Amino acid sequence: MPYYIGDVIKDEKRLVARTPEKFRETGVDVRLEVRAEEIDKDKKTVRLSDGTIAPYDILVLGTGTTAVVPKVPGVELEGVFILKTLPDAIRIKAYLREKRCRKAIIVGAGFIGLEMCEALRTLEIDTQVIDLVSRPAMRWDPEFSNTILEELTRQKVTFLPNTGMTSIVEGKDHRLRLKTNNGEMEADMILIAIGVRPNAKLAVDAGLQIGKSGAIQVDFSQRTSGEGIYAVGDCCEVYHRVSRKWVHIPLGDIANKQGRVAGLNIGGGSMIFPGVVGAQSFKIFNLGAAAAGIDETEAKNSGYHPVSTVIWGNAIARSMPGEKRLGIKLVADRATGMLLGAQAVGTTGAVERINTLSCALWNGMGLDEIAYLDFAYSPPFSPAWDPIHIAAQELIRKL
Amino acid sequence: MPYYIGDVIKDEKRLVARTPEKFRETGVDVRLEVRAEEIDKDKKTVRLSDGTIAPYDILVLGTGTTAVVPKVPGVELEGVFILKTLPDAIRIKAYLREKRCRKAIIVGAGFIGLEMCEALRTLEIDTQVIDLVSRPAMRWDPEFSNTILEELTRQKVTFLPNTGMTSIVEGKDHRLRLKTNNGEMEADMILIAIGVRPNAKLAVDAGLQIGKSGAIQVDFSQRTSGEGIYAVGDCCEVYHRVSRKWVHIPLGDIANKQGRVAGLNIGGGSMIFPGVVGAQSFKIFNLGAAAAGIDETEAKNSGYHPVSTVIWGNAIARSMPGEKRLGIKLVADRATGMLLGAQAVGTTGAVERINTLSCALWNGMGLDEIAYLDFAYSPPFSPAWDPIHIAAQELIRKL
Repeated sequence: MPYYIGDVIKDEKRLVARTPEKFRETGVDVRLEVRAEEIDKDKKTVRLSDGTIAPYDILVLGTGTTAVVPKVPGVELEGVFILKTLPDAIRIKAYLREKRCRKAIIVGAGFIGLEMCEALRTLEIDTQVIDLVSRPAMRWDPEFSNTILEELTRQKVTFLPNTGMTSIVEGKDHRLRLKTNNGEMEADMILIAIGVRPNAKLAVDAGLQIGKSGAIQVDFSQRTSGEGIYAVGDCCEVYHRVSRKWVHIPLGDIANKQGRVAGLNIGGGSMIFPGVVGAQSFKIFNLGAAAAGIDETEAKNSGYHPVSTVIWGNAIARSMPGEKRLGIKLVADRATGMLLGAQAVGTTGAVERINTLSCALWNGMGLDEIAYLDFAYSPPFSPAWDPIHIAAQELIRKL
Repeated sequence: MPYYIGDVIKDEKRLVARTPEKFRETGVDVRLEVRAEEIDKDKKTVRLSDGTIAPYDILVLGTGTTAVVPKVPGVELEGVFILKTLPDAIRIKAYLREKRCRKAIIVGAGFIGLEMCEALRTLEIDTQVIDLVSRPAMRWDPEFSNTILEELTRQKVTFLPNTGMTSIVEGKDHRLRLKTNNGEMEADMILIAIGVRPNAKLAVDAGLQIGKSGAIQVDFSQRTSGEGIYAVGDCCEVYHRVSRKWVHIPLGDIANKQGRVAGLNIGGGSMIFPGVVGAQSFKIFNLGAAAAGIDETEAKNSGYHPVSTVIWGNAIARSMPGEKRLGIKLVADRATGMLLGAQAVGTTGAVERINTLSCALWNGMGLDEIAYLDFAYSPPFSPAWDPIHIAAQELIRKL
């Protein structure tokens, strides 16, 4: 009988889609509240935290990631949170409700940090974001980071750039006091959202190959270097079709796909995971921000010859009512005219454009054809010349 | 000096983006209110309605289409309209305002007819749509036509299928009385929206090759069969990348692109028009409806071996608020697994999915890769498994 082993705690049991009993009916032995401590590749066994030894023919690692917490004094204080799992979210929600938070500081202006701004502002909590870097959403072009910053300001979220935390102590006006290289500030709650790292210790200890990214190395069939051992999801690498490198992109949709590919192969089917183009998005109040492919730096590092442009157009026809300003950035290879990357920011239509451009990146399309792609044009949905066309034509002139 | 010749009437002059004077400054002689009557291919001249003869080296035909009006008695009565040009729209608007319309009948349940329903209902005018065929938006799958019909009903628009007009006479309770094979009905205004046909007479008379569709035949550079004569826009054919046939798809975005290709070639550049995949969309009240590629019948006629599926999914993550039900139909070739066509209907996300699938059709992608395309997933914008993935996986099982 297949096992599922996880150190899922009691409170989380309801989060498992089906109960262990239900799983058992379908022939899967689900064991919760037990941790896999060590893999013995030669004996094909896993030593569990309850002292038992579980044998395997096929082993699937889906160990995910852990939120990074900087080793500074005070991160263990009440009111300091990370947000990685659903129990984390439940803890934060309970704290906000019970402690009557008036002010929050978010450390890190990435996806999680920025998305949490909206949740906190909805509760009318004063919100401040700090980051080591100079602007929010660093992955995006400075012009788009600026658009995001404007939206933060409109929503009364303050952003403090070039700021790193040095310690957290008890506060005076508020529960906590955050000390940084850029002054001190108080808040009732501090959320640390500075990224995640793959949980690869089991794999490292077992002597499995680890990629340059620190995540578990896999092949197109999700097989690790260990016989009969697969890895899927945030703990392993994924092939990037544009950079042609194996990278670590811990995102839920990729994890879903890898799980399916591994399952099909384990079940006797044959399938390869075709890879990703690095598509991602997040919502920040009224703005959508999305990106796919690689930026100029990644392009140079991969051996491409990048050239880029940023244009501002309308997501829908100019004659239609509503806010429609949409920014698109394209990066292409000067040598071939091939699209390498795309970014978009706007109140409407940003993610949709990036999904279309993801398909273009997937197929290695050149700007010449992207500039004339056939879209389902209708004024409520797009201008006759879509911002994608305009951006591609603009960039062709720079090749 | 290049000419622009058009039988644009005085009222329309303001519709020309720049005045004739402004054009002249940039070296273009714009002559309005004059019609091109005849082309002499050998002498390379055009006879105009003002009796003059205009010589040319290069001639571009952009004669567009004309709305089809059935030859039945009464179509010339006041209150009977077509909607093809902006002056048509202005005439309809003035009539509705001045005559206090309470009831309207739309003949034809295609794009124009259905889009006009919303405009008329916004003015609180009783609106009825009749069509010769059995359902609105015939191009879409019966399941989606049904969704559109439900929306029409919700918006208090009645649809009468299998109904053709036989004549229009003066009415009793309302200004007009429409007689059909399916009974008689009265209204204050009748809009005839049963399609368009290409204005190819000039080209036919000049002996230019005309395509099977009745539109002017062109090549990838927008050249007709006549030396130095180009054609662009709704009057000419376009290459369909999926059916691999030259077809007539009179849509504004295609016209824009063809004009640009012709202009580049005429101006000494070299460029080919890469064709279309038949992408189109329209909005019907709260619904977006979009399609690209070909349906089962067109696929069979082109020599493919079609197999199809219709699925209903969510445009955004299930946990997000708001109406999100989205239907997607995919048609693929059983022999190769290649995507041949796609349709979508929903309150949100339909057009966007079709734009992405247009890019997939453009590249001749197979279902195996479409089922794993990398999108910019985030719950406010899509589920982790997008309806596109689900539809593709569903259809793979039918191959």
